Amino acid sequence: MSSAHPTSPTDLSLLVFDIFGTVVDWHGSIAREVAARHPGVDADAFALAWRAGYQPAMQRVRSGELGWTRIDELHRLILDDILPRFGLDHLDDAARRELNRVWHRLDAWPDSVAGLTRLKSRFTIASLSNGNIGLLTNMAKRAGLPWDCVLSAEVFRAYKPDPATYLGAAAVFDLPPQRVMLVAAHQDDLAAARACGLRTAYIERPLEFGAARPKDVSPDPANTFHARDLNDLATQLGC
Amino acid sequence: MSSAHPTSPTDLSLLVFDIFGTVVDWHGSIAREVAARHPGVDADAFALAWRAGYQPAMQRVRSGELGWTRIDELHRLILDDILPRFGLDHLDDAARRELNRVWHRLDAWPDSVAGLTRLKSRFTIASLSNGNIGLLTNMAKRAGLPWDCVLSAEVFRAYKPDPATYLGAAAVFDLPPQRVMLVAAHQDDLAAARACGLRTAYIERPLEFGAARPKDVSPDPANTFHARDLNDLATQLGC
Repeated sequence: MSSAHPTSPTDLSLLVFDIFGTVVDWHGSIAREVAARHPGVDADAFALAWRAGYQPAMQRVRSGELGWTRIDELHRLILDDILPRFGLDHLDDAARRELNRVWHRLDAWPDSVAGLTRLKSRFTIASLSNGNIGLLTNMAKRAGLPWDCVLSAEVFRAYKPDPATYLGAAAVFDLPPQRVMLVAAHQDDLAAARACGLRTAYIERPLEFGAARPKDVSPDPANTFHARDLNDLATQLGC
Repeated sequence: MSSAHPTSPTDLSLLVFDIFGTVVDWHGSIAREVAARHPGVDADAFALAWRAGYQPAMQRVRSGELGWTRIDELHRLILDDILPRFGLDHLDDAARRELNRVWHRLDAWPDSVAGLTRLKSRFTIASLSNGNIGLLTNMAKRAGLPWDCVLSAEVFRAYKPDPATYLGAAAVFDLPPQRVMLVAAHQDDLAAARACGLRTAYIERPLEFGAARPKDVSPDPANTFHARDLNDLATQLGC
């Protein structure tokens, strides 16, 4: 960052983090667990198919077709839908429940715990995910993610990119939006936060969709920061 | 606990904690800060007067007279009300805002951080307070309270003892109520949780209202556990 940048890090008070893809590796974690449990299944395709159902499922809530429904339930609806495609429709309810909990067991990217710990020394750090509170808490406990606070769409009963989520996070801490920064690996999430007045930091996660599908991680100059990973962001913020 | 007790600690998964009086010393913290800022004021009486407005203020929300209002705002309403009684009605808005934030700066009881850290090794630990999320997060960060998750009346938009708070905490973690235990220094809070099916642990805090007003901390056999402090609870739970 140039020193003439309009946002000095000292203005920032609260960092809120997207989780799936930004802090944890959903693709790798799910592919590894599916490969271990069901060796005959294309685990890479399975992870991608499950995640592909995510936005359409949330859209059913956003549109009002479904009442407020937590991600755990949406993940289960998508899972039930894709199992036949992978020859797994024989799984009983207990097995499906257990597999669905893989989203509580996602592994952090290798830099996440160290980067968050550094950022926590200077800022309040909170999740801001469409994942539900229980999922995010179980994940954090297992992976050692040191949140000051678990914020979730569940608190605001609205899914990102609804402004109620970004503005809700600022309101919870009684802060003007410009003292809050969203940290995410997804430009659409960041653009929605920016439209609400938040600062934004893009994190490169080129392997979010697996090694076979490297993601475009080009900088967007609209973001306040662009960082290779969370350690790099901590360095840029002077932590 | 006798080994024949119907609740084995191994059934428990989630411990939720009352905060004001149970984990932090509101009376001592407020009295110390008021005494330091305003040496002429009866700081003990000031702390008691502020806290005495707490239940009536929440009752205005419970009854519907006020829409959903966070504790920060309720604390400010009470503060504005009591300042003249203590000769402090000259305080301007900035001074009142700053004083009101004392509730974010309450000191933990001496055993709290160690006890919670031990309990966290075996259980998921979360606040379950009528304090708002930002207040609880700021308090935890300052005092080093190692929550896995900050739960608050603000998440459920209902104040304890509304069943929506106790049952809401269980629902967030997809647990039956009997696998959740409320830890509190107040028998009425515990009784309300018990009526919802939660386990209960009473914590003795004889000096909650100051050294001049020792509190009755007699056991109620209806509670699952009765502990001197959070370290004692950790020992009883095998942590």
